[in-house]
Amino acid sequence: MKILVLNSGSSSVKYQLLDMEAKSVLASGLVERIGESMGAVKHKRFPGSSREETFSYEEPIADHAKGLTRVVGLITAPETGVIADVSEIDGIGHRIVHGGESFSAPTLVDAAVIEGIKAQIPLAPLHNPGGLAGIETALRLLPGVPNVAVFDTAFHQTMPPEAYRYAIPKELYTELKIRRYGFHGTSHFYVAKQCAKLLGKPFEQTSCVTVHLGNGCSMAAVKNGKCIDTSMGLTPLAGLVMGTRSGDVDPALHAFLADNKGLTIREIDSILNKRSGLKGMCGHNDMRDIHDRVAEGDHDAELALKVFCRRVTQYIGQYMAVLGGTDAICFTAGIGENDPVVRQLSCASLAAIGAIIDAERNMSAPRGQVTEISTPKSPVKIFILPTNEELEIASQTLEVLANR
Amino acid sequence: MKILVLNSGSSSVKYQLLDMEAKSVLASGLVERIGESMGAVKHKRFPGSSREETFSYEEPIADHAKGLTRVVGLITAPETGVIADVSEIDGIGHRIVHGGESFSAPTLVDAAVIEGIKAQIPLAPLHNPGGLAGIETALRLLPGVPNVAVFDTAFHQTMPPEAYRYAIPKELYTELKIRRYGFHGTSHFYVAKQCAKLLGKPFEQTSCVTVHLGNGCSMAAVKNGKCIDTSMGLTPLAGLVMGTRSGDVDPALHAFLADNKGLTIREIDSILNKRSGLKGMCGHNDMRDIHDRVAEGDHDAELALKVFCRRVTQYIGQYMAVLGGTDAICFTAGIGENDPVVRQLSCASLAAIGAIIDAERNMSAPRGQVTEISTPKSPVKIFILPTNEELEIASQTLEVLANR
Repeated sequence: MKILVLNSGSSSVKYQLLDMEAKSVLASGLVERIGESMGAVKHKRFPGSSREETFSYEEPIADHAKGLTRVVGLITAPETGVIADVSEIDGIGHRIVHGGESFSAPTLVDAAVIEGIKAQIPLAPLHNPGGLAGIETALRLLPGVPNVAVFDTAFHQTMPPEAYRYAIPKELYTELKIRRYGFHGTSHFYVAKQCAKLLGKPFEQTSCVTVHLGNGCSMAAVKNGKCIDTSMGLTPLAGLVMGTRSGDVDPALHAFLADNKGLTIREIDSILNKRSGLKGMCGHNDMRDIHDRVAEGDHDAELALKVFCRRVTQYIGQYMAVLGGTDAICFTAGIGENDPVVRQLSCASLAAIGAIIDAERNMSAPRGQVTEISTPKSPVKIFILPTNEELEIASQTLEVLANR
Repeated sequence: MKILVLNSGSSSVKYQLLDMEAKSVLASGLVERIGESMGAVKHKRFPGSSREETFSYEEPIADHAKGLTRVVGLITAPETGVIADVSEIDGIGHRIVHGGESFSAPTLVDAAVIEGIKAQIPLAPLHNPGGLAGIETALRLLPGVPNVAVFDTAFHQTMPPEAYRYAIPKELYTELKIRRYGFHGTSHFYVAKQCAKLLGKPFEQTSCVTVHLGNGCSMAAVKNGKCIDTSMGLTPLAGLVMGTRSGDVDPALHAFLADNKGLTIREIDSILNKRSGLKGMCGHNDMRDIHDRVAEGDHDAELALKVFCRRVTQYIGQYMAVLGGTDAICFTAGIGENDPVVRQLSCASLAAIGAIIDAERNMSAPRGQVTEISTPKSPVKIFILPTNEELEIASQTLEVLANR
């Protein structure tokens, strides 16, 4: 069984073709700058277990249809491909950012599902249109292949109302569906399941805090296999500090900036999404650059690192408080998997509430591998658990197809 | 030594005259609706240990000067008063909401201090003008009596930068001083000191979480006698759910409401401050009314109660995480001292991180008295500790006067 995973943004398509028997990636790539005067395509194929061939192109890509046509061409052409014909693709899994309250599980795409995804556009105006373009293009270009929508919000739909409701006028929820949704759900779900495996416990009896620190950052509290809280909210701006996103701030900040700097809501929203976070504090949004600056004695970079990690510490604490018993804390994604300093700072003060990081194990942990980094006696385990959203999307796609 | 404590709002003056040898209240009261066509004065005197006499008046109060003149008249007149002459007042302690970064301790008022308080008006446009009016009136009406400004933000000034800086562009801090300040500092300080006394530990070695749940709600993390974090921020809107204030929300909520409901920043700020919180969720902002509605089966009231308590649980967890060792959790103020259901729900899931509430002790705790409500074996103690902001302001005033 071969599954094509598509992650379609407003002007890009990321893709992976997976062999689900071997759980291996056959080909992957990225089509960028769709609709601009010059686009870019990066394509990789993995024809043998240790071989990797990379292909790069600069060419105009008019729209998503042209982009996906290019992808299909690349994976089927003898010189770049891994399959002889598109008929070898058993299903397509689409990452869809926002499923609102309508979708709490991966769903086989039909006309009603497309309408359902469209209905969530007000909640994700920047993201859902790209995903829809991906689906509609796939339906047209590969008419015989079934499509499955996998929602970034779905895993968080099990949150209880006291976790997802804001303390704002009730009608803003009932009329406009303003509530906490949470994102990165596929990653949190995958990592929580890996955590259960590692603990040798049934997933339904596993409680953990998943800490996804990548380009975007979010956390989830998982109780007995179900998400009961997560740090992103109505949008992906809330919660942790990110590369350019502020995460949580005083909700009166907007009025203060309007009064004292004459800024509009649109300008403030743009500052909080694009010019804040690590970048706003120290000018760098890549944690690796920040470590370099810290080594050079840059105090702004040091503060940015500390604010970032303290927020993680605080969310771990609040989730351990609501979980009422936590098996493990799981670090994942780019920073979570590869940055021992961030993990150390984030966990340094947690011993008193039961999670004791082993400084040596943490610092010497191999990059990108499952590793236990707590002390042997720590009541709550701390793990590095690499995420794999594409594999999870492919697995969920396969499951939906099997249960058709 | 007798100290007059004044808490001057934009259209009100709360006052207490305290005898500092006996630490007892001689008289107290409230002047309301200053500047309106009809004002109100409520005055109490406590001429004996168990006696209390109450006086109420409806009359126009043109301005703060007229209000304070009335107060001085009431406390010195034979039929309502407790002192023969204003010369018996040794000092006046003023509650000032915002000291910005300029004031980290109570301060003897002189011309420079008045300018310093004025300089903070952009940070507290609704509050500091009232406090200033109180000071200026007192200087004029009681020229020989020294005045001390006690700041609501002062206790929180020991927070480290990683706690008080937001992940927003650095220049918003350097130019506009946008940062976390925190409020209710006098109450958190008083309660944390009471906690140390109760534990029999030096304050400098006491670490606790103080939970002030009243009309406004805030929490503080106190490490070795110093505040290291607090839930209110740049303004008193952030953090916990309150009567009409939302506390924390997704900072993208504003743009969402502007886009989807056409609201202005001013309207959104007003909704979050005045129509949100408990009232927004269920129509009631008084926790006692909410309990009544819950008893009648009102689901909105039940949700409001749950959201309120869950936020408290989360902040306790995050503060225990950053404290790295907590002696006690201290509930105070109207709800904190008198509402066993809120305390129970807020602490129910904390056993796994070391704070075990004793349901029976909690439910049977006498109202407004120092009570230990954790189990005997709980590693972290849980206390009810009544706050007394007026006594704390008077004590700090006395201390400033003694060290002149």
